[in-house]
Amino acid sequence: KLPEPTSVHWHGVILPAGMDGVAGLTQKAIPVGKTFKYEFTMKKAGTFMYHPHFDEMVQIALGMVGMIVVHPKRRDARRVRDYSMMAHEWMIPIGSRRPDPMAMSDFNVLTFNSKAFPSTEPLVAELGDLVRIRLGNLGPMDHHPIHLHGYEFEVVETDGGRVPKERRWPETTTLVPVGAVRVIEFVADNPGDWAFHCHMTHHVMNQMGHDVPNLIGADTKGLDARVSRVVPGYMTMGSTGMGEMHKMDVPDNSISMLGGEGPFGLVDMGGMFTILKVRKQLTGDMDPGWYDHPAGTVAGEASAADLSRDGIKT
Amino acid sequence: KLPEPTSVHWHGVILPAGMDGVAGLTQKAIPVGKTFKYEFTMKKAGTFMYHPHFDEMVQIALGMVGMIVVHPKRRDARRVRDYSMMAHEWMIPIGSRRPDPMAMSDFNVLTFNSKAFPSTEPLVAELGDLVRIRLGNLGPMDHHPIHLHGYEFEVVETDGGRVPKERRWPETTTLVPVGAVRVIEFVADNPGDWAFHCHMTHHVMNQMGHDVPNLIGADTKGLDARVSRVVPGYMTMGSTGMGEMHKMDVPDNSISMLGGEGPFGLVDMGGMFTILKVRKQLTGDMDPGWYDHPAGTVAGEASAADLSRDGIKT
Amino acid sequence: KLPEPTSVHWHGVILPAGMDGVAGLTQKAIPVGKTFKYEFTMKKAGTFMYHPHFDEMVQIALGMVGMIVVHPKRRDARRVRDYSMMAHEWMIPIGSRRPDPMAMSDFNVLTFNSKAFPSTEPLVAELGDLVRIRLGNLGPMDHHPIHLHGYEFEVVETDGGRVPKERRWPETTTLVPVGAVRVIEFVADNPGDWAFHCHMTHHVMNQMGHDVPNLIGADTKGLDARVSRVVPGYMTMGSTGMGEMHKMDVPDNSISMLGGEGPFGLVDMGGMFTILKVRKQLTGDMDPGWYDHPAGTVAGEASAADLSRDGIKT
Repeated sequence: KLPEPTSVHWHGVILPAGMDGVAGLTQKAIPVGKTFKYEFTMKKAGTFMYHPHFDEMVQIALGMVGMIVVHPKRRDARRVRDYSMMAHEWMIPIGSRRPDPMAMSDFNVLTFNSKAFPSTEPLVAELGDLVRIRLGNLGPMDHHPIHLHGYEFEVVETDGGRVPKERRWPETTTLVPVGAVRVIEFVADNPGDWAFHCHMTHHVMNQMGHDVPNLIGADTKGLDARVSRVVPGYMTMGSTGMGEMHKMDVPDNSISMLGGEGPFGLVDMGGMFTILKVRKQLTGDMDPGWYDHPAGTVAGEASAADLSRDGIKT
Repeated sequence: KLPEPTSVHWHGVILPAGMDGVAGLTQKAIPVGKTFKYEFTMKKAGTFMYHPHFDEMVQIALGMVGMIVVHPKRRDARRVRDYSMMAHEWMIPIGSRRPDPMAMSDFNVLTFNSKAFPSTEPLVAELGDLVRIRLGNLGPMDHHPIHLHGYEFEVVETDGGRVPKERRWPETTTLVPVGAVRVIEFVADNPGDWAFHCHMTHHVMNQMGHDVPNLIGADTKGLDARVSRVVPGYMTMGSTGMGEMHKMDVPDNSISMLGGEGPFGLVDMGGMFTILKVRKQLTGDMDPGWYDHPAGTVAGEASAADLSRDGIKT
Repeated sequence: KLPEPTSVHWHGVILPAGMDGVAGLTQKAIPVGKTFKYEFTMKKAGTFMYHPHFDEMVQIALGMVGMIVVHPKRRDARRVRDYSMMAHEWMIPIGSRRPDPMAMSDFNVLTFNSKAFPSTEPLVAELGDLVRIRLGNLGPMDHHPIHLHGYEFEVVETDGGRVPKERRWPETTTLVPVGAVRVIEFVADNPGDWAFHCHMTHHVMNQMGHDVPNLIGADTKGLDARVSRVVPGYMTMGSTGMGEMHKMDVPDNSISMLGGEGPFGLVDMGGMFTILKVRKQLTGDMDPGWYDHPAGTVAGEASAADLSRDGIKT
């Protein structure tokens, strides 16, 4: 339970000034244990957000944020897969139960809807569906470049309203600034399992410590053996890169740095990462499992004939 | 007085190469104590900026930046409230008189036109006015997402020129990259006091130290008492969040972390924050004071009847 | 040679899911010493990129990235100067041979096509040429605001495809997010030597250490003399700003913080900085040397007559 006052600001909503939720400016702060009433008419359809406007730095770092979707009265003409995703960033010291609101750049837990990969939910669509993803960012500090594999898309809406069709840009990565909504749309016409993630490399990792020496290419075997005498199980990180870090044991209240099991072995991603699964046919909204690739369409080891045909010597 | 050479670059202005102000490349650096002459024709209306192009990292960190507005010969057809605002970020160690140009991300003083809230100037408009805000960012490192409450707006101009009407996007937050201008416009049709601010949570704070432990929810009473024996007046920060930090005494040459007095108590914001005041009638450009809300339009405590009607148990 | 598995993702390319290159999800990781075969049809012209999708944080920090340009069958109607530039950021501890993949914000080597100014290649164009610059960003963390002097330009293409002419914005600085392509175009109609660079001030510096005290305006002569007794050649940095830092000797495997020689003395820039050279006539793609300014078009010291005419007292 929050031990200090708060308020609720309705980000992007056009409303009377007294309902805007800025403590001190448009209303009294809501004291601990009290319930306030906000009453206003939603004048237009759209994608909005809400968060406190009292001690924002702390309360937003603790995750007090959410999204509001107002659907138009007129229904979509075709079937739409309509997803809402809030991007958030946290600094949770390893083993701790509480985020640290002082963090300005070294966030170590990155989430879509408060889950880090591999715990994020997949997105599903049938071939021919219109896919709409409402991306909101009320994280403290970073503008997240969200990238989709296998598709181009357009931004069709912001928290300011609908972007008319003839003004949109084609993109594969959309930058979602702090305090902004970007709604993207595309037709699901390319079957498969497609990565959907923040493109900042430290934002697809889980709960790293960044204060470790750079040992890529160094021989650390002797070091490990010696440290193990005093710290049983010690493993030097990263002498062959960090792709294998998922095997490390993790302390209480923390998560593995990387990865979940995929159909071809470890998917060594974490954080703001999920998977769009496009299939010819789905059973409702159920996760259809892994994609069954047509024969001959999966990258694999080149044969001796391939190499010699292309003049590659190994 | 700057103890080293400098130059002036005219950002966004189309001019002869020798007037472009890049020391070494298009002119000699201006030595200490000398005056140089730049002479060129402003070929088009627009919003431009200027800054040194010699030792930029240091001289920009010291605040050597400004905005240039070239008005078209043809006047606006309606009344326009035309504001110019430069966003800047500084690292000023607490108690110091000089910004530290080495800062790359941990800026602690965030300003609009070199003032941090509550010292920033409010923006005023009468109902029906067109409001134009020219946002420039020549800060060292951060792209600032500037958010307006109560309104949608459009970006109508950049430092590259006018954005034609049929290409604009509706927004409530515009990202102003380093080295860019975003001019926004909207009609003042929603009366009230509206927050206008950077949405990065650490950019609406004043001169925090970030090297403090995370004590939210911890009981620090005993600690304070014990430290007070050796440091009179010591107060542990943040055990109930940080909304109350404005009460702290501050060292010389520094400013309170948060807040100014508002009509409903403390507005616990700082840094890149100001207020747009829209009224039915104004006296010139004078600050009209706080908004007088119509009866029944201010969020307040829910009554027992409200709660029981909505089935809320507290 | 990379001591761990890898894969290749074809960023922005529309292809079968099994060729998408996400290790674990769409294929097995490529083991050390093995060669994999990717086979797909490039369905459309455009500007794409490639990078590993296994242990991205480490492998991208080591520079395993590149750009792919697919030209349309139809040739451009006029002469086009078509440039490809990848922005990248590195943390290379001074004197070290290897980038540190743990860096999240304090990058110290900033490059266009893996070169830092003054080693970057200039861009050249003849008056009347269409100049096209394909900017790609597969750096780890920063969105780079790339600024051109002397011109306005438009973004005509992203990694998602062509931006139709009637949707483009005029700009002088384009923000290139991590994991995105921005292709800009403009007609070379303004002769001269024009700076083209990232506008973040720490991104036009080379290999600074940022952990030094702020000494601007301080008198450090006595300090230097005393330290020199034990550290021969010691020079305190920055007591008159940092514009003179290019004179420092640098350790092995490192580069000078700032600058190259220009036609008017030191150009004290580094990192993501290069020069666009527009001339009436060129010899092929050869660097034409420095611009020969028409008489009276270079900023210089104001004469006594200038100052008195304008009422300036010095």
